[in-house]
Amino acid sequence: MKKFALIVAGGVGSRMGAELPKQFIELAGKPILVWTIQRFLDFDPEMDVVLVLPASQLERWEQIRRQFQLTGKIRLVSGGETRFQSVKNGLDAISGSGIVFIHDGVRPLVSAQTLQHCLQTAQEKGNALPVSPVVESLRQLTGQASQHVDRSRFRLVQTPQTFQTELIKKAYEQRESDFFTDDASVCEAAGIAIHLVDGNPENIKITNPMDLRVAEALLNLE
Amino acid sequence: MKKFALIVAGGVGSRMGAELPKQFIELAGKPILVWTIQRFLDFDPEMDVVLVLPASQLERWEQIRRQFQLTGKIRLVSGGETRFQSVKNGLDAISGSGIVFIHDGVRPLVSAQTLQHCLQTAQEKGNALPVSPVVESLRQLTGQASQHVDRSRFRLVQTPQTFQTELIKKAYEQRESDFFTDDASVCEAAGIAIHLVDGNPENIKITNPMDLRVAEALLNLE
Repeated sequence: MKKFALIVAGGVGSRMGAELPKQFIELAGKPILVWTIQRFLDFDPEMDVVLVLPASQLERWEQIRRQFQLTGKIRLVSGGETRFQSVKNGLDAISGSGIVFIHDGVRPLVSAQTLQHCLQTAQEKGNALPVSPVVESLRQLTGQASQHVDRSRFRLVQTPQTFQTELIKKAYEQRESDFFTDDASVCEAAGIAIHLVDGNPENIKITNPMDLRVAEALLNLE
Repeated sequence: MKKFALIVAGGVGSRMGAELPKQFIELAGKPILVWTIQRFLDFDPEMDVVLVLPASQLERWEQIRRQFQLTGKIRLVSGGETRFQSVKNGLDAISGSGIVFIHDGVRPLVSAQTLQHCLQTAQEKGNALPVSPVVESLRQLTGQASQHVDRSRFRLVQTPQTFQTELIKKAYEQRESDFFTDDASVCEAAGIAIHLVDGNPENIKITNPMDLRVAEALLNLE
């Protein structure tokens, strides 16, 4: 079974308070994106990595790759105007049957166990979405007011959102819609039921300086 | 305006993998509970702290208080069988008009700004609930399936849940119900509308060893 990791790293990093796009910011001595890609290559050295970056960042990435001596099959694809278009560009670079992990470039703490859960369920059922429980009380806004809701009926969504290649490529043939907030929602709009699996709580998305410090602490726990 | 901090610290710490109740576990050299109480005394040295602990832990607390030389007005109250009963015991120890902050003993990272938001809104409107946005995609379980929901319509609830004393004491005269998951839900059951304010993202609840490492990293950021 061929495995693809479609890593989407389109961020410009404005929330990090830094000029450097957030995927290139260093976490414990290596750019976040290097950690992220390494997770997939450690899981399977034969992984076919498709890295989607803004066209302006392709050259910088080649420098980083040489500097950090990242080995493995990594193909570069230019991103589009939107996340939808970036993922579509990445999927267009994939041919043949297999499983594709579509993953945020700034989630360097995904565990091998999460990848295994995703792989197994996507193989059996067509797709897999890693989720974590909501650990705080949850309220829903209702006009000017809000009301308590039962948090046990909700899940927080992580990546990699994982799919059989034919299924997700077909779903991405739809016209883009504002409703599409992630790959699972693209699939749902195509009438496909989504299967949830357990993610790992450390698998945070790094979007601000606080997250970066938290990620460093979590790396030290491993 | 008299201010009370009702600190609920009833946990037995089984999820921490330690025999020590989690509120007594050390975070950067001090028990979590000492950090938590200090936040309220730093905010207002005249704060009237009511600390609700299991009866079996009152003696240990006195040792900790002497060891860490915590000054300020801190009264001890024995907890009940449930969180509802523990809060009720704490409220029974409070008399007179004022504002009461009902806070988890294992949230040592509440900011002065969050306390100020809670205080001001509770003074003006009767109550205040600090919340944070949902930063991940969110799904709702629907029987065997699940569906995407708009995360911007939801908020994660922190503490201190903050109230005018008369209002919350009256709400806690109700009979206990399984529906009561926090103080806001007790108020809602009494027909009182809840007012949301901005919490601070660092204000996490420490319930497992990972949270403890994250809290250490966040303390270092301050």
